[in-house]
Amino acid sequence: MDFSSFLTSLGTSFVIFIVLMVLFAWLSTRQGNAVVYYPNRIVKGMEPWEGGSRTRNPFAWIKEALSSSEQDVINMSGIDTAVYFVFLSTVLGILVLSGIVLLPVLLPIAATDDGVKKNEHTSNNTSNGTFSDLDKLSMANIEVKSPRLWAFLVATYWVSVVTYFLTFKAYKHVSALRATALMSNEVKPEQFAVLVRDLPKATSGQTRKQQVDTYFKSIYPETFYRSMVVTNNKEVDKIWGELEGFKKKLARAESIYALSQGNGQGTRPTNRTGFLGLCGKKVDSIEYYNEKIKELTQKLEAEQKVTLREKQQGSALVFFTSRVTAALAAQSLHAQMVDNWTVTEAPEPRQLIWSNLTIKFYDRIIRQYVVYIVVFLTIVFYMIPIAFISAVTTLKNLRKLLPFLKPIVDIAALKTVLEAYLPQLALIIFLALLPKFLLFLSKTEGIPSGSHVIRAASGKYFYFIVFNVFIGVTIGGTLFASIKTIEEKPNSVFDMLAKSLPGNATFFLTFVALK
Amino acid sequence: MDFSSFLTSLGTSFVIFIVLMVLFAWLSTRQGNAVVYYPNRIVKGMEPWEGGSRTRNPFAWIKEALSSSEQDVINMSGIDTAVYFVFLSTVLGILVLSGIVLLPVLLPIAATDDGVKKNEHTSNNTSNGTFSDLDKLSMANIEVKSPRLWAFLVATYWVSVVTYFLTFKAYKHVSALRATALMSNEVKPEQFAVLVRDLPKATSGQTRKQQVDTYFKSIYPETFYRSMVVTNNKEVDKIWGELEGFKKKLARAESIYALSQGNGQGTRPTNRTGFLGLCGKKVDSIEYYNEKIKELTQKLEAEQKVTLREKQQGSALVFFTSRVTAALAAQSLHAQMVDNWTVTEAPEPRQLIWSNLTIKFYDRIIRQYVVYIVVFLTIVFYMIPIAFISAVTTLKNLRKLLPFLKPIVDIAALKTVLEAYLPQLALIIFLALLPKFLLFLSKTEGIPSGSHVIRAASGKYFYFIVFNVFIGVTIGGTLFASIKTIEEKPNSVFDMLAKSLPGNATFFLTFVALK
Repeated sequence: MDFSSFLTSLGTSFVIFIVLMVLFAWLSTRQGNAVVYYPNRIVKGMEPWEGGSRTRNPFAWIKEALSSSEQDVINMSGIDTAVYFVFLSTVLGILVLSGIVLLPVLLPIAATDDGVKKNEHTSNNTSNGTFSDLDKLSMANIEVKSPRLWAFLVATYWVSVVTYFLTFKAYKHVSALRATALMSNEVKPEQFAVLVRDLPKATSGQTRKQQVDTYFKSIYPETFYRSMVVTNNKEVDKIWGELEGFKKKLARAESIYALSQGNGQGTRPTNRTGFLGLCGKKVDSIEYYNEKIKELTQKLEAEQKVTLREKQQGSALVFFTSRVTAALAAQSLHAQMVDNWTVTEAPEPRQLIWSNLTIKFYDRIIRQYVVYIVVFLTIVFYMIPIAFISAVTTLKNLRKLLPFLKPIVDIAALKTVLEAYLPQLALIIFLALLPKFLLFLSKTEGIPSGSHVIRAASGKYFYFIVFNVFIGVTIGGTLFASIKTIEEKPNSVFDMLAKSLPGNATFFLTFVALK
Repeated sequence: MDFSSFLTSLGTSFVIFIVLMVLFAWLSTRQGNAVVYYPNRIVKGMEPWEGGSRTRNPFAWIKEALSSSEQDVINMSGIDTAVYFVFLSTVLGILVLSGIVLLPVLLPIAATDDGVKKNEHTSNNTSNGTFSDLDKLSMANIEVKSPRLWAFLVATYWVSVVTYFLTFKAYKHVSALRATALMSNEVKPEQFAVLVRDLPKATSGQTRKQQVDTYFKSIYPETFYRSMVVTNNKEVDKIWGELEGFKKKLARAESIYALSQGNGQGTRPTNRTGFLGLCGKKVDSIEYYNEKIKELTQKLEAEQKVTLREKQQGSALVFFTSRVTAALAAQSLHAQMVDNWTVTEAPEPRQLIWSNLTIKFYDRIIRQYVVYIVVFLTIVFYMIPIAFISAVTTLKNLRKLLPFLKPIVDIAALKTVLEAYLPQLALIIFLALLPKFLLFLSKTEGIPSGSHVIRAASGKYFYFIVFNVFIGVTIGGTLFASIKTIEEKPNSVFDMLAKSLPGNATFFLTFVALK
């Protein structure tokens, strides 16, 4: 890539950015779009924006974003967003603090040397055409064994020091944020609870609930409040789903009736009871649904009782009357053997992955190892199937396999685009599906909470990035640089990966910040 | 080593064993030696042995040892001894269970083949003289690519299975022993206490004790009992030492006086107050010592008050009214930052290493890394100084440096012994000092309890053994086998190490068993 095409690419991106920005500014001021652009404010019962939609500057949100304090952010979107902002500002701080010192020092040092020119004269055989104008501003322009290299060595130390300092500051800040949230008066149910897994076999004649109650009451006689044993809700969930469906249909039928009454007709809506409402007896909808709801409610209550009594699983949530006891219990061992009475802190109620709670201890360990092996294979060998698929999905093969595409494919402009994108297609699809796949794998590990699954998946994604970009692209790139120039293969998988990276990096950062 | 000299060595060891055994049996039956041989029984107020010393069989202790149950052992010598016995019986079990199956199977398989003989015929050049008769009973006698090797492969799996099974059984057993001891009614002070280190700076006007009390009272309002802040007792210890010295001198003076009164003389003992009792004023000893004791007692009390008030250090023991709270607190985080309020379980009072308690968190981490590096250097490169010293301390050099030894050294018998032992001397001294050195290093790490220091030292010794014996002797031995046979150097350091190992292995096992 030479300098002019780099500038072109930069310019194109900037134009797209400006267009989207103006579009956003215009759309967000329209009254009807308030629910799309300001859902948080509407949920909290506030005005979508201060002042009328006309008087509002289309770029006012930038000012608002910059002027809002951390406390505003926490109040509006919670602590996770605040932590994300700390993360972003730390990264920005590292970039700015490094840049302020290094750019004015290193750029002149590099630009006033002429290693590139010399290199071009002496070694024309291998690196011809790989140097661009931008390289003249980088370390590549320093001559071999020049004392100027010391400046670059010192620079790496400066970047390290800045990074250590700012990340330590961010750590302390986030830790303080978390402590404030934990100590706030606004208590949360999970702060009083622990998650207990791997209950041992109950002695005969004792239900799971009695077992858990006895155990924890004997350890915490004063602060134990109550327990909730995890049950197998499959049947109940099914009935509840049906019930909710009928409730919705009833509401619809009633509103149709009300509408027709308003029109002065008052015809009661009817429906057929058979398959998809197409056959069977014709009945009055409102009466029929009411009857169905009554019937299902009774059935649900009966099933709920059966479930609570008979379908208790080997896992429970235990509640205490004191936050301190819950925190202490979550960090302590509760049984002699590690595969019994595993106590951990309780996640937020909505984060619980109920199906994972009842997976046994050794089962979890085995799942973890299997997942780790699969992740390792994915990270290291993902290129093999992709290279294979890329080799098959060429334009030539496509014309052979799908001959009806010929007239479209032969259009010159389309052909160029297709030739550029077809070999990358498999990789693009793989990279798009990878996060979902890693989330699935992390969930399979048996992790009990949703946020922990996301954390585990981003950890796996991190290893993917480190292995494939930092190691693959840099070391691989250096190793195969000569081969590449000789064979003239600009579309290698590494290049494609490097190109598609910015999007993924953003995705990854978002993942990390979600904690 | 050929077979006959192996038998001779075995016979010699057995004769020494028998002699020592008889000596022990004879000595232990003598009345006056009871305090040496049965201190535990005497401390517990029991008879040194049942029945008179004459009627007792000199080998009765073997019967007693074999017939005593685990509970007897725990009652007599505590849980540590019982755990040590579990460890020993597990090792014995692995040996016996492996041997019972493998010896009758593998010995005939190996003995009926003739790989050794064939090897002697075909490859005379390298391994001549290294095979002994014993090798005919080992895997070395199996011919190359013989199907009999499968038996040895299966045998390794059998040994593994036996080891896994017995160690798991031992683990469960020891775990149960420990649980019983922890849950016993005989409570111990350390079960109600936690050790708190790294106290942050107290707010002005607050003593360390107030700081600790406030902090733990707010977290455990109901179960907090009291705290004991670690103080710098250097001055107090010094005064207390002097006081104890004078008390002893007083007791001696009083008994001398009582003795002289018994003799009808009644002369009061006197002493001089100056240097070593040689010069200065002559005084009545009993009066003088009484006066000194009075004076020092007052001084001690005053100093104790000052110490308690002003010399409080950044570490404390916190006591609770409940065992459960202490156990929970010891396992939980108590502060936002990891270098503040570090809470761990309290060791037994006599195990506390007071000087280590006040070492700061980061200081401990740095000490740990330094110690690890020193241990690594010791384990990997200890042979360099030893080989150097061995090269210097030869008989030849000795005669040159210490010429007055010549007449002794020239005696033929002594010369042989010296020539055999002198090159090993440095190694023997190193191996003798190594455990003490490792204990010193472990103590320097900043570990707060004596038993933990012993555990850490045995861990380091374990790495030494693994690295130098299993890796050094086996791999190194194989690598240098050909060089060795050519150069005829039987006294290599590896050989010496292997010879001196049995004693060290016992030492190591004892270390491990001490927990």
